[in-house]
Amino acid sequence: MADDIDSLIDELHAEADEDRSDAETPDVGIVMGSDSDLDTMAGAYEALSELGFEEVTVDGSPEGRFTFESYVVSAHRTPELMYAYGETAADRGLSVIIAGAGGKSADLPNMTASIAFPVPVIGVPVQEKSVDSVIGMPTGAPIVAVDAGKSYNAGLSAVQILASEHDELAERLVEYHDGLVSGVADVSRALHDRGIEGFRERDG
Amino acid sequence: MADDIDSLIDELHAEADEDRSDAETPDVGIVMGSDSDLDTMAGAYEALSELGFEEVTVDGSPEGRFTFESYVVSAHRTPELMYAYGETAADRGLSVIIAGAGGKSADLPNMTASIAFPVPVIGVPVQEKSVDSVIGMPTGAPIVAVDAGKSYNAGLSAVQILASEHDELAERLVEYHDGLVSGVADVSRALHDRGIEGFRERDG
Amino acid sequence: MADDIDSLIDELHAEADEDRSDAETPDVGIVMGSDSDLDTMAGAYEALSELGFEEVTVDGSPEGRFTFESYVVSAHRTPELMYAYGETAADRGLSVIIAGAGGKSADLPNMTASIAFPVPVIGVPVQEKSVDSVIGMPTGAPIVAVDAGKSYNAGLSAVQILASEHDELAERLVEYHDGLVSGVADVSRALHDRGIEGFRERDG
Amino acid sequence: MADDIDSLIDELHAEADEDRSDAETPDVGIVMGSDSDLDTMAGAYEALSELGFEEVTVDGSPEGRFTFESYVVSAHRTPELMYAYGETAADRGLSVIIAGAGGKSADLPNMTASIAFPVPVIGVPVQEKSVDSVIGMPTGAPIVAVDAGKSYNAGLSAVQILASEHDELAERLVEYHDGLVSGVADVSRALHDRGIEGFRERDG
Amino acid sequence: MADDIDSLIDELHAEADEDRSDAETPDVGIVMGSDSDLDTMAGAYEALSELGFEEVTVDGSPEGRFTFESYVVSAHRTPELMYAYGETAADRGLSVIIAGAGGKSADLPNMTASIAFPVPVIGVPVQEKSVDSVIGMPTGAPIVAVDAGKSYNAGLSAVQILASEHDELAERLVEYHDGLVSGVADVSRALHDRGIEGFRERDG
Amino acid sequence: MADDIDSLIDELHAEADEDRSDAETPDVGIVMGSDSDLDTMAGAYEALSELGFEEVTVDGSPEGRFTFESYVVSAHRTPELMYAYGETAADRGLSVIIAGAGGKSADLPNMTASIAFPVPVIGVPVQEKSVDSVIGMPTGAPIVAVDAGKSYNAGLSAVQILASEHDELAERLVEYHDGLVSGVADVSRALHDRGIEGFRERDG
Amino acid sequence: MADDIDSLIDELHAEADEDRSDAETPDVGIVMGSDSDLDTMAGAYEALSELGFEEVTVDGSPEGRFTFESYVVSAHRTPELMYAYGETAADRGLSVIIAGAGGKSADLPNMTASIAFPVPVIGVPVQEKSVDSVIGMPTGAPIVAVDAGKSYNAGLSAVQILASEHDELAERLVEYHDGLVSGVADVSRALHDRGIEGFRERDG
Amino acid sequence: MADDIDSLIDELHAEADEDRSDAETPDVGIVMGSDSDLDTMAGAYEALSELGFEEVTVDGSPEGRFTFESYVVSAHRTPELMYAYGETAADRGLSVIIAGAGGKSADLPNMTASIAFPVPVIGVPVQEKSVDSVIGMPTGAPIVAVDAGKSYNAGLSAVQILASEHDELAERLVEYHDGLVSGVADVSRALHDRGIEGFRERDG
Repeated sequence: MADDIDSLIDELHAEADEDRSDAETPDVGIVMGSDSDLDTMAGAYEALSELGFEEVTVDGSPEGRFTFESYVVSAHRTPELMYAYGETAADRGLSVIIAGAGGKSADLPNMTASIAFPVPVIGVPVQEKSVDSVIGMPTGAPIVAVDAGKSYNAGLSAVQILASEHDELAERLVEYHDGLVSGVADVSRALHDRGIEGFRERDG
Repeated sequence: MADDIDSLIDELHAEADEDRSDAETPDVGIVMGSDSDLDTMAGAYEALSELGFEEVTVDGSPEGRFTFESYVVSAHRTPELMYAYGETAADRGLSVIIAGAGGKSADLPNMTASIAFPVPVIGVPVQEKSVDSVIGMPTGAPIVAVDAGKSYNAGLSAVQILASEHDELAERLVEYHDGLVSGVADVSRALHDRGIEGFRERDG
Repeated sequence: MADDIDSLIDELHAEADEDRSDAETPDVGIVMGSDSDLDTMAGAYEALSELGFEEVTVDGSPEGRFTFESYVVSAHRTPELMYAYGETAADRGLSVIIAGAGGKSADLPNMTASIAFPVPVIGVPVQEKSVDSVIGMPTGAPIVAVDAGKSYNAGLSAVQILASEHDELAERLVEYHDGLVSGVADVSRALHDRGIEGFRERDG
Repeated sequence: MADDIDSLIDELHAEADEDRSDAETPDVGIVMGSDSDLDTMAGAYEALSELGFEEVTVDGSPEGRFTFESYVVSAHRTPELMYAYGETAADRGLSVIIAGAGGKSADLPNMTASIAFPVPVIGVPVQEKSVDSVIGMPTGAPIVAVDAGKSYNAGLSAVQILASEHDELAERLVEYHDGLVSGVADVSRALHDRGIEGFRERDG
Repeated sequence: MADDIDSLIDELHAEADEDRSDAETPDVGIVMGSDSDLDTMAGAYEALSELGFEEVTVDGSPEGRFTFESYVVSAHRTPELMYAYGETAADRGLSVIIAGAGGKSADLPNMTASIAFPVPVIGVPVQEKSVDSVIGMPTGAPIVAVDAGKSYNAGLSAVQILASEHDELAERLVEYHDGLVSGVADVSRALHDRGIEGFRERDG
Repeated sequence: MADDIDSLIDELHAEADEDRSDAETPDVGIVMGSDSDLDTMAGAYEALSELGFEEVTVDGSPEGRFTFESYVVSAHRTPELMYAYGETAADRGLSVIIAGAGGKSADLPNMTASIAFPVPVIGVPVQEKSVDSVIGMPTGAPIVAVDAGKSYNAGLSAVQILASEHDELAERLVEYHDGLVSGVADVSRALHDRGIEGFRERDG
Repeated sequence: MADDIDSLIDELHAEADEDRSDAETPDVGIVMGSDSDLDTMAGAYEALSELGFEEVTVDGSPEGRFTFESYVVSAHRTPELMYAYGETAADRGLSVIIAGAGGKSADLPNMTASIAFPVPVIGVPVQEKSVDSVIGMPTGAPIVAVDAGKSYNAGLSAVQILASEHDELAERLVEYHDGLVSGVADVSRALHDRGIEGFRERDG
Repeated sequence: MADDIDSLIDELHAEADEDRSDAETPDVGIVMGSDSDLDTMAGAYEALSELGFEEVTVDGSPEGRFTFESYVVSAHRTPELMYAYGETAADRGLSVIIAGAGGKSADLPNMTASIAFPVPVIGVPVQEKSVDSVIGMPTGAPIVAVDAGKSYNAGLSAVQILASEHDELAERLVEYHDGLVSGVADVSRALHDRGIEGFRERDG
């Protein structure tokens, strides 16, 4: 097999063997089947960033307590990498994995959920036609999924899962939600007070 | 919860407590899950306007006998507002509600129908994929629905419902319909008399 | 054309020409495409009966204020009867029509809605595959629909429409709804208090 | 009802009462639910023209033996016109009707097939979502249908039906078909002889 | 290739070469992809029999003017037989072919329509999942289709096609249709006069 | 509103006001739209029981550290109860909610996810046709879902979520999984060693 | 991990390391996701047996030249076994793999195709809802598939693939096909000669 | 029939009668229903070219050992050509056929698989709506299929089939696959090392 894939796999195993505390390892792992999925999967990045998470890159671990990491992992072209990623997930300190894939055979989320078990995996169908393949796991092999393209919600859900242990995250989520509510209240009042025609003129 | 949403809810309850006659309150309420639904939901506004209804805005009640009002109410972001709107609907004098929502989880029409019962609710699926969610209510929890995007027809149906009590509205509907019929008659004669080629040249 | 169909049509026109008060004519008309639809459409009968409506038959008008009638009308085998039924609906005193049909070409509800306009028609798709055909009316030709097989809800909706004019019906609907709520409360408490195993044993 | 629709209906009845020979009346009737269907339905015009049929317009009957006519007939806005067209079809000398409609409630082909029976009706679903509604007729109420948008094929099929009586038309159809076959033979040889790259360069 | 299939093919060609009048040859050919389709396809037999057609068997041609014949022809197992049947159809005197097949690759109706052209072919999808495959022919290669399983209607449509040439058949179709109408009139009156409960008791 | 529903709601609020430790409150809440969903939703009960969770009933809190509770909550018949359940979830100590509903308008999981936010909700579509409605939440309003009927997997996922905080649960999950693996290994060896015929005979 | 799965995996690697000739190793491998798939997957066994293949079991290699083997391999419960099976396929002498799985996430065929590449894998969707997941592989990761449940055809296709190298197998396939053709010829003649009624009586 | 189609058919038969060695004849035949399918079907050309295959054109056989050819063959317009191509496939030396067609009645792959049997045919649905028609073959009539539009994968699969006999091709496939793996490894490392924002900036 190609050298470059082997070195990636070796690094995952090396990190799994390190003795790092929870605060030093990424909390959330984002994996996607192809870099062509990135525009859709970037929603998870946006949600996590919105809630104060920082990305672990080659520059090392960020300052903040809550972090995530990103990889391209192709189930069909690099099954070895997928296997290594799932197998080392718990030992590498991940608490939740967000896994997205497109096409009708969107196997990456499912297979990652199977291999990384019991680390919870949130599946993101990158296309509408990927929903069935992502959600359809048999009894005994759980995955939880969001709707097609909703990687932003997957990011929120990952934080919800972490929040049961970290009250600070629960507070951030409530604050985030209050902002949403205010936004609806504002637009609702504007629509009612101006009427449909007036509202459209304003936004026109 | 945010102040702005609370003040909206308070106002709904205040209006419900007022002692206004039927002629003073809006007859039809239009609610939609997001202002991004407005382009689709504007059809209800157009149908009601075509039939002589006027919109109640911050400027107070219009002169005409038949009026409507509009709000943005998000089932998933502002469930409290949705609950308050449905709960006060009868007391606020609404005779029919037109409720539209998009997405696959288009809960606003259904939930409003459940909460505002027995005020009739006409559900408008804003997208094709919203139809199932809007129409699929269980026995005992009725909603009536129009097809995806057909808010114009929802507006007509709201007037049909009101017309059983108000003969004037029945007359307006008949007149509106006669206009439609004449339109078809004209184009049918034109197509037949000129032939397909001649007709297309004229319209080309 | 056959004599028997002609006599039915003649009777409809005769009734339309009679000078009867609203209280003397049926408020709701139930039509279905075939007597094979009766098992599904009987839900409308049950809902109306539950709410105190009585059926007009050959024995004449019942005592009660609120009544309904039933006919088999096949759009594809007896278009003349369908046309006559729709055309005379308003003059025969009907305030709402519940029209059900099965198959993929469920034309009866739509055509009746077009011909009886502006009398509101609640379409009942008798089968899942009838939903699209019933709901899919073009702009300007409104129908409101319930979900496949939900004729019971169509009955409730018909009463909701009549209730805007008749407070007595609104009260009956609220009372009906309170009964539903109590039923859920009872079963919810039983499930919680006994636990899932205990509840199933009880119901076993 | 509007005068213009009545005069159209009167003319249809008048033509039905005339005593014209088969050669004087149109052989094929094309009806469509809206003039917005014309771009799709024009395929029938093209096929019939390709096979030597001429259109009957206000200018009177063409010279040729085989003719057709076109009307806009809306099932939902002008059910009276639809009924009149179907009812007079046989007496007006039509041998085949091509009826097209769009939307999910594409009732025109079905209703026309029912009313004009036993004149055969070829249904054209103007959109993919119209297929179910057009094809789904119950036992005893026959329609034959082509695929969505295939009005050209409906035109060919109409001629096939007429050809069982008119050998001249069978010959025209065979000749038309030979042209198609030669076209495939040419392009097949070109692809094989030049190879895929060469063929694409030629056509580039 | 097997002897038995060759002898069938030889007989078809022999009949095509015979010089028989229209009255001596079968008017309608029924072909189906497998004898497991017979329960569904028997509807065509019933409709044709109802309208006075008789089946041509090994016992020779029946007395009656209008006749049909039946064959099993598998597109996928016996393409040679399918080709021979289509190729000889016109010369063997067939005016219409009713072709039914099941499964998702229901090729028999389409291929027969292509090979037997310009003899009109009415496709019968034997299963719901066969509809797309039967109806979806490209421009220039026409087929007309009935709905899944509606071979009875295919039989009626075959007679409608023949009726443009044979007034006697048009009369039989009108008479058949009058019977249907009377049936609906009877059941409609019974439902109305007895009411839903009374009607169900009678039929219980 | 009915007394019985009010007392349920009051009890939820009372429990929310109590000052109980995490160990005293149920960790997982199971809600379902109707007791007719119980057969499907019982899978969650089985998974939780398999992993050592006990149910909180009227008999009070069980001995074990990890517990759950069950309620029937109808979104469409008892929106007030649904609102109260969601609103008190965090204060009542729930860490995860498993919410199941059937039908095409399966609103309970979505609405509960919106109201109980940021407590994570795992939606269980009780029927295949409920999947779209459950999974299709808009951006900003997250839910995670399992496939239709997979309440057993929802139970496992709830434990996976709790396991990030409780190592003991992670160990139970690994042990559970090892049992599954052994089961597959056994049957795989049996199939290979005996061959397909031998294996079927054994199981016959 | 469990001992039993490890010993299976070890045996696969041991066989891969053996130095056996093509004639000594199984030509076709049948894998399925669960023994509950066996009723569906047994078709492959039947087709291979029909064409003279024998199964390799614990009793060692059969006499015949052409052989196959069977395993249960669960993608979601035993990803390690799946990986080992795919990885050793070429070295264990397999020329074709038939892989079947059910459910909406039918990952086994796809993942096996990816891991065993370039050994060709024929995917068998065990249920209709498995088709999309099995067939939908991205560019560069090929699988070939048969229709839902058609494991018999997968068996035939496996032999077709082997037949390009082994003329003996091509002859067996032709002989098999001749039998099919004769069967159709027989039933076609019987249907035609007896007529539909006579045929049904015979088979009744 | 047209001369040009006859000469094509004659040439196919002439080539079948020639006594050429395997190395002199094309290994893979590519057929498509229309030259409008060429953009989609060109993927097979690209895959075969990538793996060192050359196309046989009018310029004669190429130098290389492994070759392919291309034809347009319309099932519905030129059934004779389709029959001739399938019937001569084995004798013309083809080892695998790649057959693509679009539309809902994509009969070419199926019919070619039936006629050319036992030469294996890989069906390519040119459109999503062609999948069912291509894959849905009955028991006893095998085809293997790739997903809609995946002609590139069909090319790879054709080589996989040939590779069981030709080790050189297996090596080329492994080398091709290593390139794919390296590509994923590179992009995965880049995404992880730069982070999502850094990666998008680089690619922006």
